[in-house]
Amino acid sequence: MTSFASRLIAGARQLGPLCVGIDPHPGRIPDLFGGDTPEGVAAWGEAVVAAAAGRACVVKPQVGLFERHGPDGMRALQRVCEASREAGLLVLADAKRGDIGTTARGYAAAYLSEAAPFPSDAVTVNPYMGLDTLEPFLEEAEANGKGVVVLARTSNPGSADFQARDLEGAPLYARVVEALAPAIQRLKGAGEWSSLMLVAGATGPDEARQLRQLAPDALFLVPGYGAQGGGAEDALAGFKAVSNRLEGGVVNASRSVTFPAGSDTVESQADWHALIVAAIEAAQTDLSMHAGRVPVASG
Amino acid sequence: MTSFASRLIAGARQLGPLCVGIDPHPGRIPDLFGGDTPEGVAAWGEAVVAAAAGRACVVKPQVGLFERHGPDGMRALQRVCEASREAGLLVLADAKRGDIGTTARGYAAAYLSEAAPFPSDAVTVNPYMGLDTLEPFLEEAEANGKGVVVLARTSNPGSADFQARDLEGAPLYARVVEALAPAIQRLKGAGEWSSLMLVAGATGPDEARQLRQLAPDALFLVPGYGAQGGGAEDALAGFKAVSNRLEGGVVNASRSVTFPAGSDTVESQADWHALIVAAIEAAQTDLSMHAGRVPVASG
Repeated sequence: MTSFASRLIAGARQLGPLCVGIDPHPGRIPDLFGGDTPEGVAAWGEAVVAAAAGRACVVKPQVGLFERHGPDGMRALQRVCEASREAGLLVLADAKRGDIGTTARGYAAAYLSEAAPFPSDAVTVNPYMGLDTLEPFLEEAEANGKGVVVLARTSNPGSADFQARDLEGAPLYARVVEALAPAIQRLKGAGEWSSLMLVAGATGPDEARQLRQLAPDALFLVPGYGAQGGGAEDALAGFKAVSNRLEGGVVNASRSVTFPAGSDTVESQADWHALIVAAIEAAQTDLSMHAGRVPVASG
Repeated sequence: MTSFASRLIAGARQLGPLCVGIDPHPGRIPDLFGGDTPEGVAAWGEAVVAAAAGRACVVKPQVGLFERHGPDGMRALQRVCEASREAGLLVLADAKRGDIGTTARGYAAAYLSEAAPFPSDAVTVNPYMGLDTLEPFLEEAEANGKGVVVLARTSNPGSADFQARDLEGAPLYARVVEALAPAIQRLKGAGEWSSLMLVAGATGPDEARQLRQLAPDALFLVPGYGAQGGGAEDALAGFKAVSNRLEGGVVNASRSVTFPAGSDTVESQADWHALIVAAIEAAQTDLSMHAGRVPVASG
């Protein structure tokens, strides 16, 4: 069984480090797809998947924006996960779950088990409750070649409230990464990279490099590229040089590639598709050029 | 509009401080209800609601144990939420969500909005990402008379990994409570108690009293009573004396009241109902006697 980390890094080497965020924002689903309804969200999500297929290696559906539509919204999430896997895309479910014992097992089963109803390659989790609450996710990941993405440093202003504060001589986020070291090694095994991945937002390149020093073997999920503000160079600051190019994770873009200018006024799904494809290719090219390589689309 | 805090404290005064946890553990749903399937989980959950009605003021469905069944599991959660409200029970959705911006808004809409698909009176949230990530929940709570339950101190062993460590001179969990002070006041308004509630697990009565000092106006959701180990006296250590009785929150019991001894072998739903009723009444009586009052069942 190929590990999550191996699949992700192989995909990033082939197509570039872009992760396409699938965030069905309220009121922004084009009428072309049915608007802001569970069916519209599913159809739009599947169309994003079709545009990303062969042009990016991974998508990241934002679970909360499906959950707001209730059980039917979760059915839409299921359809998007299934469509992604059929299209050869890895799925990183951005659920930010975290709980104790059997409940954590429940979430791990929902996203990472062999018969997961929301079939994903990795899921984001919150470390606040402690390492024992991450354990069920790690076990499920090990058993099924999946990944676990732990929130370490997020990029929102509120990350200063607790994450960036000093916990016994280092920022809390650094203590979280430090405490994860054994789990990072465990999910690395004999591979190049660990299937324990970190959400590594950074306020600047220095902090990104510091995170890389703390966790040399963890792939990073970097938020904040595109609409949220940062450029490619900043987004790649925590990557490392491997064979003359930068690698070490994926960089997420959501709004800039799924709601690009003009995509709300096009009159056909074909025109919409062309706009999304162009936005994904532009982001992939921008990131790949900064990472020192030329992307090769497979689709 | 009556606030969540007012509704909860009125219920606890009338019926006692027990919160009935609805945790559909894998493999433990009796065949009487259809076993461990989405339909079985829904039927079992509705039966727990029927047993709790008039005997407790609040139930707490554990979302992860529904989510493991996928969209149909979330439909079961929806049925349990709706049945609870029809039975006059408050619903505290134990979802432990937390995310930025529109995604947090999505979760808040899913549980706390007027047309919430999982209609609840309050939802549990994780503070790791910072105060800005709690804001959408606070706004939804203010607009609709709902509550927000923030994880402060959990009772699992892993809570020692980060929550209990020293952040600039006080434990992280105390810093979280401290940072919440303005929000606690904001959701208190002119009422007796704030609709910003805290998950207040404690390693002992001293810590519970310390949490109470830090947040005199916040209701506590106390885990760890019953099957998880603590007795009534410990569970109530963070409550305060009001008119000769202890009040200040609710105490959760899940397994001890929903999977009591013998409940897996009874042969009829009527016998099962009698066992659950007896377990709920015993827990309510135990807690109420320690709180210095005699409960009055309304059903």
